[in-house]
Amino acid sequence: MNSTYKAFWLEAGDLVVIDQTQLPFSLVTKTLKTSADATLAIKDMTVRGAGVIGNVAAFGVYLAARESKGDLVKIKELAAVIRLARPTAVNLMWAVDRLLSVLEKAATQNQDIVEVALKEAIAIADEDVVGTRNIGKYGCELIEAIAKTKPKGEPVNILTHCNAGWLAIVDRGSALAPIYEANERGINVHVWVDETRPRNQGANLTAWELGQSQIPHTLIADNTGGLLMQYGKVDLCIVGTDRTTRSGDVANKIGTYLKALAAFDNHVPFYVALPSSTFDMQISDGVKEIAIETRSADEVLYLQGLQDDGAIGRVRVAPLETTALNYGFDITPARLVTGLITERGICDADETSISAMFLDLIP
Amino acid sequence: MNSTYKAFWLEAGDLVVIDQTQLPFSLVTKTLKTSADATLAIKDMTVRGAGVIGNVAAFGVYLAARESKGDLVKIKELAAVIRLARPTAVNLMWAVDRLLSVLEKAATQNQDIVEVALKEAIAIADEDVVGTRNIGKYGCELIEAIAKTKPKGEPVNILTHCNAGWLAIVDRGSALAPIYEANERGINVHVWVDETRPRNQGANLTAWELGQSQIPHTLIADNTGGLLMQYGKVDLCIVGTDRTTRSGDVANKIGTYLKALAAFDNHVPFYVALPSSTFDMQISDGVKEIAIETRSADEVLYLQGLQDDGAIGRVRVAPLETTALNYGFDITPARLVTGLITERGICDADETSISAMFLDLIP
Repeated sequence: MNSTYKAFWLEAGDLVVIDQTQLPFSLVTKTLKTSADATLAIKDMTVRGAGVIGNVAAFGVYLAARESKGDLVKIKELAAVIRLARPTAVNLMWAVDRLLSVLEKAATQNQDIVEVALKEAIAIADEDVVGTRNIGKYGCELIEAIAKTKPKGEPVNILTHCNAGWLAIVDRGSALAPIYEANERGINVHVWVDETRPRNQGANLTAWELGQSQIPHTLIADNTGGLLMQYGKVDLCIVGTDRTTRSGDVANKIGTYLKALAAFDNHVPFYVALPSSTFDMQISDGVKEIAIETRSADEVLYLQGLQDDGAIGRVRVAPLETTALNYGFDITPARLVTGLITERGICDADETSISAMFLDLIP
Repeated sequence: MNSTYKAFWLEAGDLVVIDQTQLPFSLVTKTLKTSADATLAIKDMTVRGAGVIGNVAAFGVYLAARESKGDLVKIKELAAVIRLARPTAVNLMWAVDRLLSVLEKAATQNQDIVEVALKEAIAIADEDVVGTRNIGKYGCELIEAIAKTKPKGEPVNILTHCNAGWLAIVDRGSALAPIYEANERGINVHVWVDETRPRNQGANLTAWELGQSQIPHTLIADNTGGLLMQYGKVDLCIVGTDRTTRSGDVANKIGTYLKALAAFDNHVPFYVALPSSTFDMQISDGVKEIAIETRSADEVLYLQGLQDDGAIGRVRVAPLETTALNYGFDITPARLVTGLITERGICDADETSISAMFLDLIP
C-alpha cells in the first residue's frame, strides 16, 4: 500500500518527509523508519504544522506497531513517547489517541494490528486532504466577496502569519487553502507574509510555498502588519491554529495575538482556518488553560539562512552574554476573531456557534 | 574646543562617531570630516536614534561651515542635503534649522561662522545631556512607584522596543534613561528587549547597552511581548519616538504600535519618552501627516550577525525569488499612550496637556 501527499509519503512501508528545517534553500527528505524517528522529527521540527504533526504522529504509531510486531502494550509505551514530542499541538495527542483506540478495538477482533495502524494513519491523512479542500472552498467565499468590492486589477490583500499551508496540513493547508482556491479560481490575490520570528516559518516556508504556486506575495517583518492595516493595505487576515478552545480562543504561533489586535483596531476581518481536529473541546480559557511551550533560546539568539557563499549557516544576532526567552505560541482571545473557517463551514468564534456546528466533538 | 559624549565626540575638530552598524560585536568608530560624511553616516545608519541624528546633523552643519569657510550660501546648500538624509526623524530637520537660524544671525553680526556653528552644535548636545538626565528622573518615579508594589526580590519588568538609549540620545537616551536612573538608585529592574526586526536594534544595541551597565535583561522576538503581557510579566512599557505630533500620536520604530495595542488590551502602562525637540507641533494626525520612510528590502531579506567562524556576515532568510517591503516606522495613536515622559515632566498624550507643558514650542 502506498500513499503520496505533498509534505510526506510512504516508500516501502517507511514514511518519507520533507525536511522543513532545510527549506527554502534545499529540498531534502528524511526517511522515518521507527517511532523514535517520528518523535524526533516532530521534536526537532523536521516536520511542523498542526496537521502534519498529527499525520506523522499517526504514522509514528504505525511504525511503533511495526517495530513491536503488533504488541499493543509495547505500542502504547512507544505512543506515549510520541505524544510528548510537542506540548501545544492538540492534533498530536488527537492522532495518537485515535490510532490507539482503533488498535485496541482491532486487537479484540484479532485483526492485523500493523495493517490496521497503517490504514488508519492513511485515513487521517485522506480526511485532511478532503478537509483542507473544504476549508479552501469556504474561505474562498470570503475572498471572492472582497474581490467584488475592489477596483479592477487591484488584488485582495491577505495577511498571514507563520506557515499554515500544505507543509502544515495536507494537502492545501488551513490558512493558505482559501488562497490556493482563490488563485485557482482566477481571483487576484496578494499575500503579506509575516516572516515569523524566531524560526522564520513565513520567510522560509510560506514564501516558498506561495512561490511554488506563483501566487504574488511580499515578505514583511512581523512588526509591519500594524502599519499596513493603518494604511488600509490589508483586506483580510487568515492564520492557522495549533489549538482552539470550545469558546474560540486560538493558540497559534507567537505574534498572532498582536496581528489580531491590529486587525480589530483597524476593522480588518481576522479569520482563523482549522480542521475540526484542532478544536480542544475540553478547555475554554486559552490563556489560563493552554500550556505554551518554551523553546531553545538559541532560536532567538541565532538565525539560520543562506550565506553569501551558498552554504546554509547561522549568525548570532545578540551579544554573546545576552540570554533570551522563546515562547512558541500565544493566545488570540475569541473576541478578536471574526470567524473560524472549518471543513464544515464558517462559524463564529464563540461557544454557542462552535457547539452548534461541532456537537459531535463535545465530550 | 573639545567635547566628549558617549555616542560621539570631537577630535581635532572632526566628529568621531561609534559605528552602530558594527555593534555589538565590534566597537569601531568613524571620523566625519565633511558635511557629506555626516549625511552619509545618518543615511547608512552608522548613527541612528532621534537625538544622535540631530546631533550629527548639527555637527554636520558645522562641518559644512568649515569646508565652505563660513560662506552662508554654500552652508545652506550643504545643510539642505543633510536635512534630507532621513525622512522621518524630526530632530534632523530641527537641528539643521536651529543651526542655520543661529548662523544667519551671526552673519549679520560679523561673528566667526565656523566657531558659532561648533558652539551651537555642542550646545544642542549639552542640552540633550541635561534633557535625558531629567527624562530619567521623571520616568524613574514611575518605576519606583511600581517597585513599591512588588514582593521583595521581584524586579520591575519593563519592555522596550528598538534602541532609545545613549546610542540614540546623549547621554542617557530617552526610553532607557529612566531604567539607568532606576538602576543607579538600586531599584531592581529587568528589561524585556524586543529584538526589533528588521535591523535588530534591540538585539544589537539595547542588549549591548544594558549589558555594558550590567542591567538584567532578556532578549525576545518582537512577536513575544503580547503573550508576556497576557501572562502579567510586563509591568511597564517605555519606548522612544522619532516624531510625536501635538496631539500625542507617536511615530516610532515599526512594531511599536503592536506593543501599544497589547499594553492597552492588558492594562499595562505604555509610556513614550522624548526630549521636547522630538515634538512636531505643526502636525496632529500621525497616520495621515507623517511620511513613513520605506527602506531597502534587503534589510528584511538578509540578516547580519556573528558567524560561527567569528566574522560578521549575513544570511538570507527568504527564497531568492522573494521580494519584501520594509517600512521603518509606524504610528501609535495617542489614545494608546499612557503618558509622555519629557525633560520637563510627564504629560498626557493629548493636545491640551502637551500644549500646556510646551506652550513655547507652538508655532
